[in-house]
Amino acid sequence: MSWIISDREYNKEKIESNGNKYLLANGYMGYRGTLEEYTKEQYTGCILAGLYDQVDGKWREPVNSPNGMYVKIYCDGESLTVLDNNLQEHNQSLDIKYALVQRNTIFAKKDNQVTIKSERFLSVDDVHLLCLKYSFTTTKNCKITIETGIDGDVWDINGPHLREINSGVTDDILSLKAVTNELQKQIVIAEIVEFDYGQQSIEQTTDKIFRKIELDAAAGAAYEFIKYVAVYTDNDKKSDLTQACLETLTGSSELGYAKCLARHKMIWAARWAKADIVIEGDPEAQLALRYSIYHLLAAAPTHTDSLSIPARGLSSQVYKGAIFWDTELYMLPFFIYTNPEIARNIVNYRINTLAGARRKAKEYGYRGAYYAWESQDTGDDACTHFNITDVFTGRPMRTYFRDKQIHISADVVYGIWNYYHVTGDFSILFEGGAEVILECARFYYSYSYFNRDTGNYEILDVTGPDEYHERVNNNAYTNLMAKYVVGVAIKVLGILKIENQQVYETLFEELDYGTDYVNICDYYENLYIPEPDSDTQIIEQFDSYFKLEDISIDELKGAMLESNEYLGGANGLATRTQILKQADVVLMLNLFKNMYSTQVKRANWEYYEPRTEHGSSLSSCVYAMQAAHLQKTDYAYKYFMKTATIDLTGDYKQYVGDLFIGGTHLASNGGAWLAAIFGFAGLELFEDKLQFKPSLPAGWKSMKFNLQIKGKALGVEITDDQIRVTAQGSLKVEV
Amino acid sequence: MSWIISDREYNKEKIESNGNKYLLANGYMGYRGTLEEYTKEQYTGCILAGLYDQVDGKWREPVNSPNGMYVKIYCDGESLTVLDNNLQEHNQSLDIKYALVQRNTIFAKKDNQVTIKSERFLSVDDVHLLCLKYSFTTTKNCKITIETGIDGDVWDINGPHLREINSGVTDDILSLKAVTNELQKQIVIAEIVEFDYGQQSIEQTTDKIFRKIELDAAAGAAYEFIKYVAVYTDNDKKSDLTQACLETLTGSSELGYAKCLARHKMIWAARWAKADIVIEGDPEAQLALRYSIYHLLAAAPTHTDSLSIPARGLSSQVYKGAIFWDTELYMLPFFIYTNPEIARNIVNYRINTLAGARRKAKEYGYRGAYYAWESQDTGDDACTHFNITDVFTGRPMRTYFRDKQIHISADVVYGIWNYYHVTGDFSILFEGGAEVILECARFYYSYSYFNRDTGNYEILDVTGPDEYHERVNNNAYTNLMAKYVVGVAIKVLGILKIENQQVYETLFEELDYGTDYVNICDYYENLYIPEPDSDTQIIEQFDSYFKLEDISIDELKGAMLESNEYLGGANGLATRTQILKQADVVLMLNLFKNMYSTQVKRANWEYYEPRTEHGSSLSSCVYAMQAAHLQKTDYAYKYFMKTATIDLTGDYKQYVGDLFIGGTHLASNGGAWLAAIFGFAGLELFEDKLQFKPSLPAGWKSMKFNLQIKGKALGVEITDDQIRVTAQGSLKVEV
Repeated sequence: MSWIISDREYNKEKIESNGNKYLLANGYMGYRGTLEEYTKEQYTGCILAGLYDQVDGKWREPVNSPNGMYVKIYCDGESLTVLDNNLQEHNQSLDIKYALVQRNTIFAKKDNQVTIKSERFLSVDDVHLLCLKYSFTTTKNCKITIETGIDGDVWDINGPHLREINSGVTDDILSLKAVTNELQKQIVIAEIVEFDYGQQSIEQTTDKIFRKIELDAAAGAAYEFIKYVAVYTDNDKKSDLTQACLETLTGSSELGYAKCLARHKMIWAARWAKADIVIEGDPEAQLALRYSIYHLLAAAPTHTDSLSIPARGLSSQVYKGAIFWDTELYMLPFFIYTNPEIARNIVNYRINTLAGARRKAKEYGYRGAYYAWESQDTGDDACTHFNITDVFTGRPMRTYFRDKQIHISADVVYGIWNYYHVTGDFSILFEGGAEVILECARFYYSYSYFNRDTGNYEILDVTGPDEYHERVNNNAYTNLMAKYVVGVAIKVLGILKIENQQVYETLFEELDYGTDYVNICDYYENLYIPEPDSDTQIIEQFDSYFKLEDISIDELKGAMLESNEYLGGANGLATRTQILKQADVVLMLNLFKNMYSTQVKRANWEYYEPRTEHGSSLSSCVYAMQAAHLQKTDYAYKYFMKTATIDLTGDYKQYVGDLFIGGTHLASNGGAWLAAIFGFAGLELFEDKLQFKPSLPAGWKSMKFNLQIKGKALGVEITDDQIRVTAQGSLKVEV
Repeated sequence: MSWIISDREYNKEKIESNGNKYLLANGYMGYRGTLEEYTKEQYTGCILAGLYDQVDGKWREPVNSPNGMYVKIYCDGESLTVLDNNLQEHNQSLDIKYALVQRNTIFAKKDNQVTIKSERFLSVDDVHLLCLKYSFTTTKNCKITIETGIDGDVWDINGPHLREINSGVTDDILSLKAVTNELQKQIVIAEIVEFDYGQQSIEQTTDKIFRKIELDAAAGAAYEFIKYVAVYTDNDKKSDLTQACLETLTGSSELGYAKCLARHKMIWAARWAKADIVIEGDPEAQLALRYSIYHLLAAAPTHTDSLSIPARGLSSQVYKGAIFWDTELYMLPFFIYTNPEIARNIVNYRINTLAGARRKAKEYGYRGAYYAWESQDTGDDACTHFNITDVFTGRPMRTYFRDKQIHISADVVYGIWNYYHVTGDFSILFEGGAEVILECARFYYSYSYFNRDTGNYEILDVTGPDEYHERVNNNAYTNLMAKYVVGVAIKVLGILKIENQQVYETLFEELDYGTDYVNICDYYENLYIPEPDSDTQIIEQFDSYFKLEDISIDELKGAMLESNEYLGGANGLATRTQILKQADVVLMLNLFKNMYSTQVKRANWEYYEPRTEHGSSLSSCVYAMQAAHLQKTDYAYKYFMKTATIDLTGDYKQYVGDLFIGGTHLASNGGAWLAAIFGFAGLELFEDKLQFKPSLPAGWKSMKFNLQIKGKALGVEITDDQIRVTAQGSLKVEV
C-alpha cells in the first residue's frame, strides 16, 4: 500500500515525533497525531492557522484551540491509556490519500481485554469541522465510562494564550469560549456526541467541559459513538461564532459521519488527481514522496485568499507559526505548478503584508520593503535579535536572522515572479504584485553601498542562506538575488507600461519612483556579482570565505562540547571555518542554472557538498536537484530520500541550544517534490517552451505526474526510453 | 620625600605587581622589580626593547635576556630567600629621581641574623650596562656562599625564545650566548664581579653559568661586591657582541661603581629638569605624577632613532611588547612637549614601519597604509583574529581588534601632525612623514563606501576606542579622525608644494596620487560625521547605539558569571548594552575641543561618564581632561588620581579571559601628564598662540613645569591667582 503510514507498536519515545508523523490538517487548522486520551503533557495540539497571540513579551506564536477530540475510557473505574503499561496490541495509521487517522488498541486488564478503535479526520469540505468515530468492545461484562468533551488546558510554548475561558451546554451541545490574550480575539469550540447507550452527566471545571457516559458493557458487544467538533474564531468574520459552530455541528450530524467523510474524501481525491506523482519500481520512494505531498496539501490555505504556510506547517507553535523564505523557495513551486489557486493565496499573503515590510525597512533606516524574516498576520517581524540561548552560559545569544538576512525580500519577489511566469496570471501584477516588486527593488538599492574605487555597488553586512556565517559582505546568493529583483522590477515596469498604462502611471506616482527608476537601472548594471574563479571555477560564498579554516565536518563535530550547541553565531565552531549550514552558492546555481556552465555548476557542487553540514532541512533537496542536473544520480537519490523521509523517520534536530524546533518540515516536503520534478524529471520552463531532461534514479521504471502551466493542464509520463506529454491546447515542449 | 616609592614589608601576593612597581628601564631594556634571589617562577625578566621572537606559531613577543643580576646567599649551606618565612625585616624602594632600586632584608636564622643590602640601576649613560652593589653582614661567624652569575632559564609567556645557549669564562668574565628561535639573532650577556674575599669556583649547566664564592664570614663584618652586567644583541649592529660586552664591562669596572652611578644620575637629573611637574600642596598627587613621568622617561628610546614605546613599556612580554595607538595618543604628547628628540624617534618608528602598514592594507583588500593594531619591529600586525579565550568554553574567541580597529592609522597621523604642530619641525614631513599621511588618507578613502541615497561617504564595520562594541557603523571618533587625516593630507600637500616643490612632485608621482587627491578632497567634503542631537546635544557613539539596552554598570556586573569573563566580543554582557569600555565620544571631543560648544561637551561627558566601565587604563585620563576643561574639578581630580596611581596601587585587571595582561601602564602614565598639563593647567596650543585656562584641584597651591614649543624652552608657574610664563624669545601666550 503506497498510501498508508503506520506504526505497529507503541513507543513512548515517539510521543512527540508521532504527533507530527500522524498530523492531520486542512489549512484552517492542524491536529497533531496524538491519541484521544492524551492531554497537553503529550503535546496534544490543535493549531489555528493565522491566529497569533503574545503573552508578557514572550515570543508571539499561533494559538492552540481547546481540544475537542479528547476521549478517555474507564473500565470498572480504571482509566485506559497507552501511557500505562498494559497494552496487548497497539497500532496507529494515517491514510494519506484521504487524510484519515486510525488507531486500534487492545488493553489487557487482569481478566478482561478492552479493544478501542478510532478514526478521525479534519474535514476539507467544511474546514471548521473535526470528526471522530470511536468504538470499543470488552471480553468481559464490565462498567465502562466514556469521558469526552472539550479540554481547554492546552499545550503552549509561550502561553497561556487563552483567557476568560467559559463553558456551556445547549441542546446537548457542549461549548467552550475563550479570548486571546493580546488582541482579545474570541474562539468558540463546540462538540456533539452521538451515542445510543448508557447514562450521561456533564462535568464543568475552570477550563474543561466533559460529558461522562456510563454503561454496563456486555462482553463481545461493540459500542460506537460519533463526535463532531466545530471551531470558529474572530478571524472568520462571523457575527456569532457560537451560532456558526451550532450550524456546522447540526449540519454535519444531519448529514452523518459517512457522508461527511465521503465529501472529505472526494476533495482529497481531486487534490491528488492534480498533485500526485506516480513512481513505478520504488515503493519506498513512492510513499515518501506522496507523504511529502500530503503535508503540503494538508497545510495549504484554501478557505481564505491570503494565508501562507508556516515553516512547520500546522504541526505546532514551533518557529512562532511564522512564514519564512521557505514558503516561496521550497513550497510555493509545488502549488504554482499543480494548484495555482492555492499558489495565488500564498502570493497574496505577501501583497497583504507589504505594510509590515515597509515598517521593517523604515525601522532599520532603509527605504522600500524589507520583509519579515518571520512573518505572521501583520507582516511585522516576529523574529527577535536574540533567537538562541547559549548552552554554555544560559544567556540569550545575539543572532542576525532578523536584521541581516536581507535575501528575504528577494525570495518574496521570486515567489511572485515565479507564479506569474508559470501561470501567466497578469492580474497578480496589477493587484499588488508590481508594488511589492518595486518596493523590494528600492529596498536593495537603499541597502547597498557604492564603492568608488571599483565603480560597483556592494551589499555589505548580510547573512546568506548559510546562517552559520553571519554579517558577511557580498554573499553571492544575496547579490545575485538582489540583481534579479531589480531586473524583475525593470521588466515589470516595461510590462505595465504596455499592458496597463494607468496602473503604471498611478504606481509610478504613488511610489514617487522617478529617481529610483534611474537608480535601479544603474544598480542593475553595476552591482558586484562574485564570479567563478578563473582557475577553479568556484564562486566564493562571500568576501574572504576562502580565508576561513578548511576543516572537515568530522573534525568540527569532534570539537563540540555539547550535543546541541549552536554551530553558528559569533563564536560558533562552524563560523570560523568553511563549513556551511546549508546550500548557498549551490542554491544560487540551482535557481540560475542557465547563467552558469555545467563546469561551474559541477565544480561548485563538488567543492561545497563536503563542506555542507545540512543543519537545515532546506539543504538536501537543493543538492539533490543539482546532482540530478549534473547526472550525479546516486547523490541525487540519496539527498532526495533524505529530504522526502524526514518526517517519517523523525531524524531531525529537535533542539538548537534550548530552543525546541520539532514539528513537520514543509520545506523538505516541498523540496522532495522539487527534487522529483526539477531534478529527476529535469523540468525547466523557459519563456517560450517547456523542457525535460530526465535523469531517473536506478530502479525507477517510470514517473507520471500532472502539471498546470500557463493555465493549461499537462500530463507527463517519463520512462527509461520515452517521455510522453499530453496537453490541452498547444505548448512547445523540448525533451 | 616626593621621589621615593617603597614597601616596608614582604608580601608574597605582590610578587607580580612589585615586579612592575619597582621596574627599572633605560629604553634599551627593562629589568623587573624582582629580588636578586628570584628566578623565572617569580617573573624575573630583563626585557629587550625591539627584539622580537616567535616560537611554534605562538604569539610573537619580545625576548627576555638571560638574567645577569641573579644572586643568592647561602649561610651555613642553607639558602637565604624571602620566599621562605624567616624574615625579620624587609624593605624595597625605588628612587624615581635617579632610577635606583634598593633592598634591605634581615633573615632571622636560629642563632644568627643575616642582613643583605643591594642597590642597582640600569645605566642611561651606557644602555647596555646593569650595575649591582650587594653587601651582607651576619651577627655570628658563619660560612657564607655567594651564588651569582647568569641564569639563562628565563621567564617567557610564549617561549622558549633562546636556543643554542652556551656559556664561557674569559679573564674572570662569565658570559652566556644564545640565538633567538625565529630569526637566529644572537644575544650575548656577560658579567664581572668585584670582591676581595673568599674562594671562587665556576659552575656551568645547560643554561646557567654561576660563580660560587665561599668565605668564612666574621660576625659584624660587612662584605660587599660590585657586579657589572653587559648585554648586546644583533640589533646593535656590532661586529663582535662578546667584544662589545667586554668593553662595556672593563670600561665600567675601570670607572668604578660610584662614577658609573654619578653619570647615570646626571643624565636623570637633566631629564627631570625638562620633564618635572612640581605641585605644591598635594604630596600624594606629586608623587603619583612623578612616578608616572618616571615610567615614561624610563621606557623612552634614546639609543636609536626608531624605536617606540610598547603598551606595557619594558615591563614584560605582555601584549606582545607591541606598540598600540596608546603611544601616539597617550604617551607621545609628553615627549613632544618636553623632549622633542625622543618624540622624533617615536614618530620615526611609524615612518620606518610604513611598509608593514601597506602590506596590511593590501592583505585586507585596501589601498594605502593600514597600520598594525599591534606593531613590532617590521610593522606587520602581531595581533591575531583570536585574542581572547572564552572562559566558558576554553575556546579562542574571534575578536576584531586587528581587522576593524581602523582608527589606528589616524592615530599615527595624529602623532606625526601633533609632533610637527608643536615642534615646528618641517623635516619630519620631508623625511617620510608626508608619505605616511598621504598613504593613511588614501587608506580611509579606500575603506569607505559612498551612500548614494544620502550623498555621503560612510565608514562601515569598524571597532572604535570602545572595544566592547565591535563591527559598528559610523563610529563618531573614527569618522572624525578619518576626516582629520584627509584634512591633514590636503594641508601637507599644500605645505610641500610651497616649501619643497621637489619633494612634492616626487611624492605625487611615486605615490601616483593624482586621482586620489581629487578623491580625498571630495571625501573631506562629504564624509558623514555624526552630529550632536539637536535636543539633547548628545552625539551617538555609532549608528543605532541609542537602541541598545541602557543599563547601569552595577546591573551589568551583577550579571557576570565569571570574574574575568570578557564583557565585549559578540556575546559579551556589555555588547548588547550602552556600557562602554572607555572614552570614545568624549575622547573625540577632547581631541577636537574647539569644534564643539561647551554645552555639547558637557552633555556628552554627563551622558557617557556613568556608562563607561573604564575597562581600559586609557579611559580615566580622558574623563579627567574633559572634566577639568568643563570645570568639574572634583571629577577631574578623581580621574587624574586613578590614572596616576595605577602602577602604584596595582589596582588593574591582571586577566581578561585567561590572558595575562599585567605590567606597567604607560598610557596611564602619559595620561596623568596629559591630565595635569591639558586638564589642570588648561594648556592649548593654537597655530599662532599658546593658551592657559588653569583649573587647579583644591589644595594645589601651585603647579610648575617646563615645556618646549616650536624649539623654544618655556617655564610655567601657575598659582591660585597668577600664571607666570618665562620663555626664550617671543611667544604669544593667552591666559
